[in-house]
Amino acid sequence: MLVLITYDVSTKSSEGRRRLSQVSKKCLSYGQRVQNSVFECIVDATEFRRLKYELEELINEETDSLRFYNLGDKHKTKVEHFGAKSSYDMEGPLIL
Amino acid sequence: MLVLITYDVSTKSSEGRRRLSQVSKKCLSYGQRVQNSVFECIVDATEFRRLKYELEELINEETDSLRFYNLGDKHKTKVEHFGAKSSYDMEGPLIL
Repeated sequence: MLVLITYDVSTKSSEGRRRLSQVSKKCLSYGQRVQNSVFECIVDATEFRRLKYELEELINEETDSLRFYNLGDKHKTKVEHFGAKSSYDMEGPLIL
Repeated sequence: MLVLITYDVSTKSSEGRRRLSQVSKKCLSYGQRVQNSVFECIVDATEFRRLKYELEELINEETDSLRFYNLGDKHKTKVEHFGAKSSYDMEGPLIL
């Protein structure tokens, strides 16, 4: 299934940037970054549960938020992109 | 249907902040803000086409990007939230 993950944290503080970096690295081990705080991961149900658990361990629950959207298996027609191409390498790992 | 809209723009510049404000206002006329650059809108197919057209008019296509995710009609079980509650008023209008 395609799972969309959005992460809200202020990156004005070095701690916030550090957490975004950690969340990014974790998501990138499962999928790809499509916008600054938006990640798309192709996972099965077991991986999805593990990913959620691992990300919850990384964030500051008082100040940050994570949202997960399950787009299911038939997701190709459900996503549209406009504007600038992603500056992120959609295939390779991102070094943060 | 539930449509998720994610918007990527640098808000370091006043122009970027102005465009985020304009995109926010437009999205809020159709739905609600759930994270800083993430909006959820309940729309029908006609409204979705109009919303996409109107947002494309607002962004800088050279530097900004918009992504649309169609979660369909049966979306209640597809969305999960962790961490801090949204600081945005999920029901009322956001004054920007």
